[in-house]
Amino acid sequence: MRIAILGFGSVGQGIARAILAKNLNITVTGLADSRSGVIDAGGIDLAAALARKGNGDPCGTPGVSPADVVAKADYDVLVEVTPTNVETAEPALGHIRGALRRHKHVVTSNKGPIALAYPELRSLAEANGVVLKYEATVCGAIPLIHAIKEGLAGNAISRLYGVFNGTCNYILTRMAAEGLTYEQALAEARELGYAEADPTYDVEGIDAAIKLVILANTILNMQTTLDDVERTGITLLTPDALRLAEDQDCTIRLIGEIVPKAGVLRVSPRIVGKAHPLVVEGTLNAVTVETDLAGDLTFIGKGAGSMETASAVIGDLLYIHDRYVQGS
Amino acid sequence: MRIAILGFGSVGQGIARAILAKNLNITVTGLADSRSGVIDAGGIDLAAALARKGNGDPCGTPGVSPADVVAKADYDVLVEVTPTNVETAEPALGHIRGALRRHKHVVTSNKGPIALAYPELRSLAEANGVVLKYEATVCGAIPLIHAIKEGLAGNAISRLYGVFNGTCNYILTRMAAEGLTYEQALAEARELGYAEADPTYDVEGIDAAIKLVILANTILNMQTTLDDVERTGITLLTPDALRLAEDQDCTIRLIGEIVPKAGVLRVSPRIVGKAHPLVVEGTLNAVTVETDLAGDLTFIGKGAGSMETASAVIGDLLYIHDRYVQGS
Repeated sequence: MRIAILGFGSVGQGIARAILAKNLNITVTGLADSRSGVIDAGGIDLAAALARKGNGDPCGTPGVSPADVVAKADYDVLVEVTPTNVETAEPALGHIRGALRRHKHVVTSNKGPIALAYPELRSLAEANGVVLKYEATVCGAIPLIHAIKEGLAGNAISRLYGVFNGTCNYILTRMAAEGLTYEQALAEARELGYAEADPTYDVEGIDAAIKLVILANTILNMQTTLDDVERTGITLLTPDALRLAEDQDCTIRLIGEIVPKAGVLRVSPRIVGKAHPLVVEGTLNAVTVETDLAGDLTFIGKGAGSMETASAVIGDLLYIHDRYVQGS
Repeated sequence: MRIAILGFGSVGQGIARAILAKNLNITVTGLADSRSGVIDAGGIDLAAALARKGNGDPCGTPGVSPADVVAKADYDVLVEVTPTNVETAEPALGHIRGALRRHKHVVTSNKGPIALAYPELRSLAEANGVVLKYEATVCGAIPLIHAIKEGLAGNAISRLYGVFNGTCNYILTRMAAEGLTYEQALAEARELGYAEADPTYDVEGIDAAIKLVILANTILNMQTTLDDVERTGITLLTPDALRLAEDQDCTIRLIGEIVPKAGVLRVSPRIVGKAHPLVVEGTLNAVTVETDLAGDLTFIGKGAGSMETASAVIGDLLYIHDRYVQGS
């Protein structure tokens, strides 16, 4: 199977490392980062490209753009792993459209295009006889979308809720365990690389809200936008609030919740009993799905990280390989 | 899609109820319990069959055997949901072989044939151009096999461990919470229908061991039998042992564990930190999978129950429908 990779940051490099380490029968024929690109129908030398990035150099030739790779490389699947833009989803959205129009399958970890334009992209994929997969957009390493769409096929989902943001979960875990203030815990998260210099996207619940929109629109037959999500972040939480919860054998977690029948999408700090499966520590993610046949199911795992996200992308690639491009 | 159902106890009836309640595009053309059977290419009246069972009557005609249904009914998929026999796997094993030889797909919830004869059955299915699915044999409602084989495709699994038996988990939960003795907690589990009159199969870890053998042989490329599982049950545990664990913010769970590289399969009571995602309450099951790319993932859900098991069977049926018999 031949793939082209757009984006050669931590996720793209993780995918390249996994392809090198494992016998996955995948050849990379196109590759682009924000500054350069390579097109080689014979197969790009990934070790050399990783070495160039390691030296701070572009992964390929400065004259070759991501759009060139999308339009000209010879691939079965476009792997789109550039950073998320939640305002316009560009430039990823245009690249995904371009690949689908060329009858190429697409696997993406990019939340923007899936949150903003899934119905259009899905129709475009169907019209061109290809598939669009996006497991990596929600909860990183947890094969949540796969488990719900396929493993729980036949079930109706009455409610889906969980911990969708590892940064917030780390901050709340540390506030509860050590009595830290929000600011102290945030500073610690920054030092460890769990929080960005501007943490707004995480701590205000925007990241969790985008994941809810993706789940609602892609597996719960809803039509929602980010504006439909009631959203409260964790910035105003005090050590006292956490202590009060602890006194009742509870704790506080930033919970994202969807109730499809009621049309509710909500992100807010909630008091949860400590024995609840959702109460995970550190940067973990955890999601509970309430179903009619299977009862309640909880999935726990790492929500971020380059190899974890690469794992979800590779799961999607092998899914496409087994069903659509076997033998090529 | 046309299916034949062998076994019309709680799981078979759960499947019938789900087919009636949902628009699944499934017609049942063959049905047999231990005393009777029906073959009807036009589609069996499931509501009437359920009503007969509800009245204590056989589901069909006394002269029609399960073997008749396997050999003569007109179906795409055989659904084999009779009780498990861990000694010989019969009569289920013979019925599954018969269906595969007729080029029929098979979905089963029966641990016996999968634990004892998976390599043979898989070869037979491949030789006949059909598939054999068995999600319901391990952890009921949790789509564990699906999530590992498909969602985590590309990952290497270094260790898999968890709570595979709801009866033991209920007993241990109650001993820890109330200071009950093993005998008291077992009596309570029996009253609530969580334990059989003869609880040996559950409390001695045999049920958990069979599930390990299934996982080892079907998704971890091992070749094991029940004799390869080191096994200790929970019958000798005392309230004191649980109290000691509690004093260290731990508890005791019956843990089944596979370490593929070391060739280890083991079921034994283990001390686990209370914050560990595996420490679930009551009759829940929970499994942690350690992988190279995705890190550790934990799956929690109901391990038994008629609708929960039916959910897994229906997930497998829809998988086969979408990939192999769409349109028929």
